[in-house]
Amino acid sequence: MADLFWPGDERAGALLSQQRFLAAMLEVEQQWLSALSACGLAPAGAARSLDDVVGAEDVAELATAAEASGNPVVPLVRLVRQRLGDGPAATWLHRGLTSQDVVDTALVLCLREALVAVLADLRAQSMTLAALAERHRATPMAARTLTQPAVPLTFGLKAATWLDSVIEAAWAVRSAKKRLAVQVGGAAGTLAASTELFRRVGSSDPAAASLALVADLADRLGLPPAAPWHTVRGRLTGAADALVAAGDAWGRIASDVALLGRPEVGELAEPTVPGRGGSSTMPHKANPILSVLLRRHALAAPMLASTMHVAAATYVDERPDGAWHVEWDTLRVLGRRSVVAASQATELLAGLTVHSDRMAEAARRGELLAERRSLDAVVEDQPGGPPYLGATDRIIAQSLARCAQTWKDDG
Amino acid sequence: MADLFWPGDERAGALLSQQRFLAAMLEVEQQWLSALSACGLAPAGAARSLDDVVGAEDVAELATAAEASGNPVVPLVRLVRQRLGDGPAATWLHRGLTSQDVVDTALVLCLREALVAVLADLRAQSMTLAALAERHRATPMAARTLTQPAVPLTFGLKAATWLDSVIEAAWAVRSAKKRLAVQVGGAAGTLAASTELFRRVGSSDPAAASLALVADLADRLGLPPAAPWHTVRGRLTGAADALVAAGDAWGRIASDVALLGRPEVGELAEPTVPGRGGSSTMPHKANPILSVLLRRHALAAPMLASTMHVAAATYVDERPDGAWHVEWDTLRVLGRRSVVAASQATELLAGLTVHSDRMAEAARRGELLAERRSLDAVVEDQPGGPPYLGATDRIIAQSLARCAQTWKDDG
Amino acid sequence: MADLFWPGDERAGALLSQQRFLAAMLEVEQQWLSALSACGLAPAGAARSLDDVVGAEDVAELATAAEASGNPVVPLVRLVRQRLGDGPAATWLHRGLTSQDVVDTALVLCLREALVAVLADLRAQSMTLAALAERHRATPMAARTLTQPAVPLTFGLKAATWLDSVIEAAWAVRSAKKRLAVQVGGAAGTLAASTELFRRVGSSDPAAASLALVADLADRLGLPPAAPWHTVRGRLTGAADALVAAGDAWGRIASDVALLGRPEVGELAEPTVPGRGGSSTMPHKANPILSVLLRRHALAAPMLASTMHVAAATYVDERPDGAWHVEWDTLRVLGRRSVVAASQATELLAGLTVHSDRMAEAARRGELLAERRSLDAVVEDQPGGPPYLGATDRIIAQSLARCAQTWKDDG
Amino acid sequence: MADLFWPGDERAGALLSQQRFLAAMLEVEQQWLSALSACGLAPAGAARSLDDVVGAEDVAELATAAEASGNPVVPLVRLVRQRLGDGPAATWLHRGLTSQDVVDTALVLCLREALVAVLADLRAQSMTLAALAERHRATPMAARTLTQPAVPLTFGLKAATWLDSVIEAAWAVRSAKKRLAVQVGGAAGTLAASTELFRRVGSSDPAAASLALVADLADRLGLPPAAPWHTVRGRLTGAADALVAAGDAWGRIASDVALLGRPEVGELAEPTVPGRGGSSTMPHKANPILSVLLRRHALAAPMLASTMHVAAATYVDERPDGAWHVEWDTLRVLGRRSVVAASQATELLAGLTVHSDRMAEAARRGELLAERRSLDAVVEDQPGGPPYLGATDRIIAQSLARCAQTWKDDG
Repeated sequence: MADLFWPGDERAGALLSQQRFLAAMLEVEQQWLSALSACGLAPAGAARSLDDVVGAEDVAELATAAEASGNPVVPLVRLVRQRLGDGPAATWLHRGLTSQDVVDTALVLCLREALVAVLADLRAQSMTLAALAERHRATPMAARTLTQPAVPLTFGLKAATWLDSVIEAAWAVRSAKKRLAVQVGGAAGTLAASTELFRRVGSSDPAAASLALVADLADRLGLPPAAPWHTVRGRLTGAADALVAAGDAWGRIASDVALLGRPEVGELAEPTVPGRGGSSTMPHKANPILSVLLRRHALAAPMLASTMHVAAATYVDERPDGAWHVEWDTLRVLGRRSVVAASQATELLAGLTVHSDRMAEAARRGELLAERRSLDAVVEDQPGGPPYLGATDRIIAQSLARCAQTWKDDG
Repeated sequence: MADLFWPGDERAGALLSQQRFLAAMLEVEQQWLSALSACGLAPAGAARSLDDVVGAEDVAELATAAEASGNPVVPLVRLVRQRLGDGPAATWLHRGLTSQDVVDTALVLCLREALVAVLADLRAQSMTLAALAERHRATPMAARTLTQPAVPLTFGLKAATWLDSVIEAAWAVRSAKKRLAVQVGGAAGTLAASTELFRRVGSSDPAAASLALVADLADRLGLPPAAPWHTVRGRLTGAADALVAAGDAWGRIASDVALLGRPEVGELAEPTVPGRGGSSTMPHKANPILSVLLRRHALAAPMLASTMHVAAATYVDERPDGAWHVEWDTLRVLGRRSVVAASQATELLAGLTVHSDRMAEAARRGELLAERRSLDAVVEDQPGGPPYLGATDRIIAQSLARCAQTWKDDG
Repeated sequence: MADLFWPGDERAGALLSQQRFLAAMLEVEQQWLSALSACGLAPAGAARSLDDVVGAEDVAELATAAEASGNPVVPLVRLVRQRLGDGPAATWLHRGLTSQDVVDTALVLCLREALVAVLADLRAQSMTLAALAERHRATPMAARTLTQPAVPLTFGLKAATWLDSVIEAAWAVRSAKKRLAVQVGGAAGTLAASTELFRRVGSSDPAAASLALVADLADRLGLPPAAPWHTVRGRLTGAADALVAAGDAWGRIASDVALLGRPEVGELAEPTVPGRGGSSTMPHKANPILSVLLRRHALAAPMLASTMHVAAATYVDERPDGAWHVEWDTLRVLGRRSVVAASQATELLAGLTVHSDRMAEAARRGELLAERRSLDAVVEDQPGGPPYLGATDRIIAQSLARCAQTWKDDG
Repeated sequence: MADLFWPGDERAGALLSQQRFLAAMLEVEQQWLSALSACGLAPAGAARSLDDVVGAEDVAELATAAEASGNPVVPLVRLVRQRLGDGPAATWLHRGLTSQDVVDTALVLCLREALVAVLADLRAQSMTLAALAERHRATPMAARTLTQPAVPLTFGLKAATWLDSVIEAAWAVRSAKKRLAVQVGGAAGTLAASTELFRRVGSSDPAAASLALVADLADRLGLPPAAPWHTVRGRLTGAADALVAAGDAWGRIASDVALLGRPEVGELAEPTVPGRGGSSTMPHKANPILSVLLRRHALAAPMLASTMHVAAATYVDERPDGAWHVEWDTLRVLGRRSVVAASQATELLAGLTVHSDRMAEAARRGELLAERRSLDAVVEDQPGGPPYLGATDRIIAQSLARCAQTWKDDG
């Protein structure tokens, strides 16, 4: 999965890969067969594993065939049915589903894995940042505003604001993950086919049975049930927005690290790894590669979310003519890149070198106390007194408390 | 506030206008004076109304002067101080604050008003849509997917999916509104100046006093307190994302109305208002103006949110060199347009004409039952039976329940 | 026109303001009357100035009235006709035009003015940059790549690459300006009404007469003629792209200036103007306000162009349901901000302070010669030799030549 | 290259694939060796083919290794050098180049191929559209504005406006293609290393020799020479904008086809291909898949260009910390998708079915003549007269002439 165009891509492993997407679509079809069988609509024999029927080696063929129907489910169902030959599984395969049910739910399964991976990294980052904030609670540095030195700061407080961003992103991602649910509504969101089948077999309440069937599928997939959201795309745009929020947090951290790591500033340094950060012609260089690659992601992610929103806003009918189709690869790109960046940010923070001597040097510049001196105009100063660091400690403490609160339920 | 470039702009009234922004900045400064005085730092006389000091007539001058410092607070403080003449208010004005504190908190005040307005409209839309879903529970129409007739639907279910989008947006906006908080951290987020002042006057715990001062300001402004988020912009990007989610919901509804209102389809019609929808040359036309203007907004809103995210992701230092400044007008544009669209969507839905005869006609087309017939392959049909509408009623009922749950606490 | 949300806005004066837009729409209507009269369709009396009929004081009323028809032309025509009373001007007003003709052509007039202003600034910037490149041809500085010092450079070469960006933008803007043309096609781009009128009055070739009428209007407005481009929006998206290209150039320059102006680097400084760059609490600060405001624009402009493209890509029918309406304010915002940024960039460059001593100091760092030393592996070095500056002088000379070539026809 | 997330991807073949990118980077390195050898700097033996040294089977390893340096050139040079063993090719490999030279020039080679492919399709589309405009010169249909029937039109004129969009895009793409040039400047755009080498071997004018070397490389790669544009990204943003312009043209055509192909309108139909457009559950459906997939692309492309612009606008130093790296995959995605869409649009237009009977039926609706009747107020009508089609024929003729002019030099 490594990618010459996006170094670091292999960090996302198989997440949101074509193989994983295919496997997720198969999983939806297979669990649907199981659910059809469990409720008595289909015979027991219909519930069979599809793992041996279609696999990674079929990806290329299916992907090529997908264009004719505009989505990969039509050829997938055809291929599975053909390979199943006669029998109840072939007969019952995909009954009651529509292509969008399978694509949407499979995307949700893939996307959820990406969100889980991102969340794990946000947690690790939180722990590292909390430790940094704690450790550097009293490490003075110069605050800079609009590129110019302003007043004293501690690096612990800067780390605490990074932590705040990461926690904020974690809440967004967690909330988005919780909302990811099964999407099954049949051809137009009415569940007509499954309801009709229940009616035909004499169900006393076919509609209720149909909704229960979807709930059973959700349960089998480990997803919450949901009303059909084939045209209500907030779950997906919300997931995209949350991933962008995470990218914002990392982008901001990376921007700070890249800047403070400039030799002229020299207050931070990326973790050194043999062979990393080298130049093809300048052997002395130690480029802040992780920050660079994080900023790369942060610059592109927002526009991927806006694509999701433009799509959502132009949905029409019970399945739109293009707005649905643009979501898939957009989510793949945004999801994979987010997982990559999450991992890079974790590594960056875990190995960050803090040059507190350089920080202290910059913090000693007299001009940083200009604001302090200006206060003489309102309250006369008393000689001595603590450094001009305000409520830094307490603000850090609050941030650490938020961090602990955020992750308390996650082990 | 009407705008030749954005017809309908006057629906947003003074919300997020320059006058309102100025008033909000003044309000922050004034309540800060009150808080400074209440806590004993400043003398009682410092707490005075600033309403009579600077007003709407100063907007142009202040806006022009704002360029020199890059933000409007510097000239505002200068002007207020100059007009206050001698005295404690002039002395204490803005002490402990930095420009960003005032701009951010004032923006939050303005933005919150916009979110409140949008929420009120989302609530009204929910009520209308719930009634539509209820009333048209049994109004058959043709579902269309990928532009082609698919299976039968009811208009009630379509209205229920619109309702789902609106409710989803309401949760997003409500959640974003709750997160909007005071932003005060002083020059670099340390609260150094106010803490120093407390120290100078002999406070036993200057940092705690400083945080309490900010909390008191928040309380006076009707905002929640918060740690300084001068570089943690999720509150603002979250508000932008929520407004875009609302725009998505309206865009989708408007796309459906515009399409179903085409004479060739003729199933829906916008409310008719004398003089609305006319053409400058074709008197017979009844253009779906509200849908058109809603789609206008929905096409542009996502990119405004992505601007907020690009800004957030490139924050650096304790105040960035451009990323902060781009937020203000972006929020103004997105906020005002959202309020305008909210109002238009409410009006559109409230007056929507449903041509159930045309819907029924399209729903009678035999091809809509192709899926139903295809089910004969798995379960033999019984003659008769209800229309092929699946779990439509139950799905609508669930949507109505979500709607009731969503708004139960709002009277 | 100053704007609290966008400091510096007043630099754009009346360009693309509501007043200017109204005046431009009036100008189109008036010149159309003149053209109708000149070709003999309308009586001589129809050609009258409309300047005294509607004016700036009507903007608010017209803007408010615009919502009912979705565009401002319908109420404008109604108001003009009403105020004209009886007579040939009232009778012939707007005959053969449609609202989109007037809005599009008026936007083109407004946009062209903005492009002209931007071009003038790009020219001034080119002259300044050429002089800087010339003057600092031998001013050594350190090149930095991926935030780290790399090899020696001259500031002259850096200025030359800035110049290249500005020239590139100038070609883009100039090309976009040339393409801006009249847009008149009548109700659906067929020129049916004017052609029909020519037929009714016995024209021998009504279609040719109709096209000639449009060409005459174009000539009167100082625009090139064009086939109706009511659904072919490349002229507008191209203008937006060109403005974004200019913003890119300024953004990159501003990013360099903001960075190199950090005290830790100290190689460049913004022009100092009394009162500019000050802080509300830190009197020592000299914030690089122009760079900050330029970066602000550069971060937002690309998404405005993408809004134009999303609109263009979703045009449908002979006038789309929203994609047209979103263009107006998008162009206003992008156009005005571009003019503001153009002016700021000109000022920034004209007053740029170059600290060649600090540059020289950084350029003396031995590590900058690591690449040079690495060449020993392929060709043994001779002692002495010129500084390691490569073809810097020639590259600058080429850039200056391109600059001269670019502006040779502009006086 | 088929892609489950983006059906149709295989239409782009190997264009802008990882293999092609690797081959292009190798080609740059190899031609540089040839140029070094041809100018006498390197011995003749240094000029050797690298085709047998590194190949497609190395992509994954190189891509994985690319993260450590942030770009794929560092590991590529290392691998090639290692495999070359001793000898002049290994010694001279990459001398004078920097990673960005190789990546940028290789991207240009890949991108140019994509532009060529797009241009070929735009040409084919032009021919088809010119024929459609010609053939349907007198095929009446209803113009629709703001979703409502307006006045009569001919389908020939609609095709002519589509043609105008395609021609406009062709000019943009052609112009962007011409600007794509070699990008070689060495470590920081000074050509220091190659110039130094020429000096060391006693060249009389090392800087001139260095520029000639780059020009020779350009010639060998079939690219125009250029001054280093390592920080001047208009060539790449311009290419992105041009591809978006093409996407806009196809998006608009696809939107029209999708709409006019709705059964309620029934005026156009996509080419029918056995197996295409089918549904997984509704066998009767004939979904307009090509239009759907074209609209998919058109909705996403603008945001990819805006990513390129945000990157260009935040370039800093002589190589930026992230803004460069985000370009590669952004161009890959935009480039490949554009080639896919180009091919789909060609196929769509080539097989378009025009239902002129349905068009005629809609064109007969009396309300379409309302504008005509309104003209009685200014010039009394004469009985009879031609249809109300204005200058349709002449406008089509002009469009055809522009088409012929556009393609006259291309065989």
